[in-house]
Amino acid sequence: MPSSNATPDAPQPPLAGAAALSVNALSERLVSRLVDDAARFGAAVSHAQNGTVLVDAGVVAPGSVAAGVLIARICMGGLGHVTVRESLDAQPLWPSMIEVRTSWPVLACLGSQYAGWSLSATKEQTGGKKFFSLGSGPARALAVKEPLFAELGYRDTHERGALVLEVDRLPPQVVIDKVLRDCGLAPERLTLVTTPTHSVAGTVQVVARVVEVALHKTHVLGVALDEVVEGGGSAPLPPPAPDGIQAMGRTNDAILYGSRVHLTVKHDAVARRLAAELPASTSRDYGRPFADIFTSFNYDFYQIDPALFAPAEVWVSSLESGATYHGGRVDAALLHDQWSGKP
Amino acid sequence: MPSSNATPDAPQPPLAGAAALSVNALSERLVSRLVDDAARFGAAVSHAQNGTVLVDAGVVAPGSVAAGVLIARICMGGLGHVTVRESLDAQPLWPSMIEVRTSWPVLACLGSQYAGWSLSATKEQTGGKKFFSLGSGPARALAVKEPLFAELGYRDTHERGALVLEVDRLPPQVVIDKVLRDCGLAPERLTLVTTPTHSVAGTVQVVARVVEVALHKTHVLGVALDEVVEGGGSAPLPPPAPDGIQAMGRTNDAILYGSRVHLTVKHDAVARRLAAELPASTSRDYGRPFADIFTSFNYDFYQIDPALFAPAEVWVSSLESGATYHGGRVDAALLHDQWSGKP
Amino acid sequence: MPSSNATPDAPQPPLAGAAALSVNALSERLVSRLVDDAARFGAAVSHAQNGTVLVDAGVVAPGSVAAGVLIARICMGGLGHVTVRESLDAQPLWPSMIEVRTSWPVLACLGSQYAGWSLSATKEQTGGKKFFSLGSGPARALAVKEPLFAELGYRDTHERGALVLEVDRLPPQVVIDKVLRDCGLAPERLTLVTTPTHSVAGTVQVVARVVEVALHKTHVLGVALDEVVEGGGSAPLPPPAPDGIQAMGRTNDAILYGSRVHLTVKHDAVARRLAAELPASTSRDYGRPFADIFTSFNYDFYQIDPALFAPAEVWVSSLESGATYHGGRVDAALLHDQWSGKP
Repeated sequence: MPSSNATPDAPQPPLAGAAALSVNALSERLVSRLVDDAARFGAAVSHAQNGTVLVDAGVVAPGSVAAGVLIARICMGGLGHVTVRESLDAQPLWPSMIEVRTSWPVLACLGSQYAGWSLSATKEQTGGKKFFSLGSGPARALAVKEPLFAELGYRDTHERGALVLEVDRLPPQVVIDKVLRDCGLAPERLTLVTTPTHSVAGTVQVVARVVEVALHKTHVLGVALDEVVEGGGSAPLPPPAPDGIQAMGRTNDAILYGSRVHLTVKHDAVARRLAAELPASTSRDYGRPFADIFTSFNYDFYQIDPALFAPAEVWVSSLESGATYHGGRVDAALLHDQWSGKP
Repeated sequence: MPSSNATPDAPQPPLAGAAALSVNALSERLVSRLVDDAARFGAAVSHAQNGTVLVDAGVVAPGSVAAGVLIARICMGGLGHVTVRESLDAQPLWPSMIEVRTSWPVLACLGSQYAGWSLSATKEQTGGKKFFSLGSGPARALAVKEPLFAELGYRDTHERGALVLEVDRLPPQVVIDKVLRDCGLAPERLTLVTTPTHSVAGTVQVVARVVEVALHKTHVLGVALDEVVEGGGSAPLPPPAPDGIQAMGRTNDAILYGSRVHLTVKHDAVARRLAAELPASTSRDYGRPFADIFTSFNYDFYQIDPALFAPAEVWVSSLESGATYHGGRVDAALLHDQWSGKP
Repeated sequence: MPSSNATPDAPQPPLAGAAALSVNALSERLVSRLVDDAARFGAAVSHAQNGTVLVDAGVVAPGSVAAGVLIARICMGGLGHVTVRESLDAQPLWPSMIEVRTSWPVLACLGSQYAGWSLSATKEQTGGKKFFSLGSGPARALAVKEPLFAELGYRDTHERGALVLEVDRLPPQVVIDKVLRDCGLAPERLTLVTTPTHSVAGTVQVVARVVEVALHKTHVLGVALDEVVEGGGSAPLPPPAPDGIQAMGRTNDAILYGSRVHLTVKHDAVARRLAAELPASTSRDYGRPFADIFTSFNYDFYQIDPALFAPAEVWVSSLESGATYHGGRVDAALLHDQWSGKP
């Protein structure tokens, strides 16, 4: 949380107060648990030829919901609570839900969890298929390759790091080498975790981005990030879909149509604005299953209205006034229509 | 979770992939906490003459909800999350609920938690009253006295173990000796935990069997156990009833009429079938409080339709199709009618 | 939990069975976490001239929800679970809720968490403004300055202690010296945590008193405290209000109009009575926002009907009969009317 005694007329980057916190140090214990107790999490550990630790959490190894939860906590740099919860409602939105909370929404979500680091390799480089994955998690803050980090005013310098790759195979050596180089890590001090989109653990760790999605759209809307001081949210946890497009559609639908996010911000005008502009329902593309939208744009992700990537329902509290504003709503009917099997 | 690369035409036992996991090792830390912090849990620790550790969690010592939660986690071999939750609903099914989750449903529930080990002693053997109790928890997997273990393909070989006895007095020496012999443990390395049915801790640890009940009926239905890869559920936590039959009736009613279970299975046909056949409402005996049913059968447990022992409401997700099927429903009216005091 | 084998005709104090438990020892690990990881909790640590540890969790440092949760757990002497939960309801009472549970309601809530120790200093003593704060948390049980402790039959003798002060500045040296003297602690072994009423952490730790409020009114009603053996509850977590009166009103409204508490007591007559008499709605002052009530009594706290300080809705289970009684209700409309911003 940014220091409250920042001088208003000398603007500081949003994470100026977070210099003492290392997302890689804070998540190191979680990474060790995943590696040391891999069998328990349905994961498999191997090592690249140079000693980098590779965790398979859904490629050949089955992975698990428990693995996905632990990986989501790693993604948030050890600064987020992530839990799978059984709904206690008489008429549940969905039987199993992901719940996320953080007192460091900007650092945990944008400084660590956001899948913002593009990692690719050509066929020539891999000696096989070309490779592409977005990297998320704390090692991003060691590499600081994304312009976002300059804006955040945050850089981690821990001597160990972990990165999560949402992709269906282990990374090739050329990508491992690039990550090591950019992070400035000794090979055996980097852990790369792989969670395919269509895996159980992958579904969990993507749906666990529910607060991050809200923070990202807040940023897209041009709201100063040091406004956001607390964040929490929930979203339904569907099983993965076997098909790639459907799997991606499903985790997006969980957020766009099934999630609720509660942010606390500093100023009243920001709270009022976010309640109005943050919900996915503000997007021209809102209202259809994500896979349908994606298909209708000929699988061109960049044709989709960026305003769609947002929580279904938002509550935004203002420290200035103490008031809480509310916008959007969950669409249970759309989710059940998509996800329920016909008996 | 069973390995995903098992060859389909060479069937393996459901826990072939779990050989590296020891339910007794994984729960050892929890057992130590119960013994070392016994006062905090309202429990009392004593030792048999040969050094076996005896934990009283409701016989003379009062026990507690916290003890019941810890004992439930021990019962699940350290592979389940068990929590008591306060309902946040406007119209709650019940104010306090038990929530259970595991990424190892077959191992945690059937390989450890299931109360499947019959332990008895005659009056001659005890030198007093005859003794009978069903043993549950991880030490079952050391003794492997039940045919179920051959079917599961699992055996633990840890050098410590814990067993939970749902009975209203501490076990006699002859039973302790039998457990030690069958488990192959040194006396001081066995912990026996006693939770009477009518105690607070006993009520918690029985209601925490909500996912186990679903797994057991899945087995009774003849579904291959390696189908089930994730499980979670909830059930209302009533206070214990002072009367023995009522106490047993109450924990059963919590499951049969108040629980919701969410399983994830491999194949679509299994998911569809379980949603239809798993709920308690499929039983001919469904619809009356359990104590009434039991009484109507002259207290002969084996006259009760086995299909009754099942969750009230089930959701079953299929990895094959990604669809989720739904069956049964919670009967809040029956529970409130049974459990609510008249002002 | 009191020993179950107490002789009924030789009445014992309610915490006679708790002599082996030290609320300061049980919370020591939590205090260390707050101090050692202060940056992570948005807190700042300093030391008084004599070495006493001072934690600022909302005076100059911003604090956080995570700090408030940890401080609430410290307040309960390490014997309570405190969690912030995102509501999963379709129509939530409030998006974020505090959930509290304890198997030691009397010791955790009255022996530790209750804000019962008045600490004040004159202008002459402070060399500046006069100081007043109510102290809560485990060090109260070292000082035992309140008559309540004789009634409870409990005294802690741990060599370390922590006290929480709900006040908007760090305590002056004269107050620190008084606490040290009364607790019999070496200066560096006392930690004083400061959480202003209008801070995020302060709001959390006050709303987390939901079960304590029920225990306190139980005591006011003259019910024997050894009756209460388990407690849990929930209440909505609003943002702090910037104004002092409004901030105090808001946390009170969260309890009086938004909370639900579930107690387990020994006897049926007590359960029936508490369900009828415990809810805030039994008070003549019930029905208006707390800040309005307080203002209407010219800010004289002692003019307010003590029966008002109570949960909105209570469920009380009886071990004697196994019945559960229910009284009061949550008033969502009043809370939304007070707390919701107009778009």
